[in-house]
Amino acid sequence: MKAAKISGSVQKKLKQARVARLATLDGKNRPHIVPICFVYDGRLFYTAVDRKPKRVPAERLARLRNIRAVSRIALLIDEYDDDWTRLWYVLIRGRAKLIPKSAHLEHASAIRKLRAKYVQYAQGMLADDASIIRITPERVTFWGAI
Amino acid sequence: MKAAKISGSVQKKLKQARVARLATLDGKNRPHIVPICFVYDGRLFYTAVDRKPKRVPAERLARLRNIRAVSRIALLIDEYDDDWTRLWYVLIRGRAKLIPKSAHLEHASAIRKLRAKYVQYAQGMLADDASIIRITPERVTFWGAI
Repeated sequence: MKAAKISGSVQKKLKQARVARLATLDGKNRPHIVPICFVYDGRLFYTAVDRKPKRVPAERLARLRNIRAVSRIALLIDEYDDDWTRLWYVLIRGRAKLIPKSAHLEHASAIRKLRAKYVQYAQGMLADDASIIRITPERVTFWGAI
Repeated sequence: MKAAKISGSVQKKLKQARVARLATLDGKNRPHIVPICFVYDGRLFYTAVDRKPKRVPAERLARLRNIRAVSRIALLIDEYDDDWTRLWYVLIRGRAKLIPKSAHLEHASAIRKLRAKYVQYAQGMLADDASIIRITPERVTFWGAI
């Protein structure tokens, strides 16, 4: 799948952002959202099932069940500010997929990038064999002070 | 529609939060997310089509087109912190509906509450006849430091 091109100033926001919100759909097309830590490598987004406490065991996580059922997702990166002239957001429409066990290089590279971005991941909050979701952007729109 | 009951500590977070992220679906069940200003009155959520600049005219706004096509939404309230012990989120699954022109009292009351919460709305960023979306929570889940 070809990833959508993203311009320079938007790229910068995506690389700096510490959090994104991921909307997925379950098998009955019911929407779900969750805040995620992620890394953007200039083309693809990666997010991990990390060691933060979860409401349910990893294998039952809604985001994983959902992307298995429906790969189409939306990802929002924004930052709220009470000064509304500073507001901005980037909305990514695309596909999400669990990196398969066979894709060792991509998996290892995503783990490395996540650990480089978040000190918590470097310090043990991210297992070497963590499940990693790859998000391929297909359409990117943005708004506001970018 | 009966709104889901929400407990005290979660209520407090919902009332204090300045921003939420709203996931909607278009007529083809494609997800969309947008950050919203909102008010929660202890039972229902209200969000307005305000006077912040928009990418498209109000009548073409994706969130409005989408809730007309599919009322089922998800609403996420969370706050990111680099100290992960402080993270929390509240996920609302429910229905969204544009308040009809006939519901004068509810419309006026929502406008009043939004203006009481956001000084920008009191100072002219919210028209008296702004479109207001009512969100009825059906299912509420939360996680983390709440």
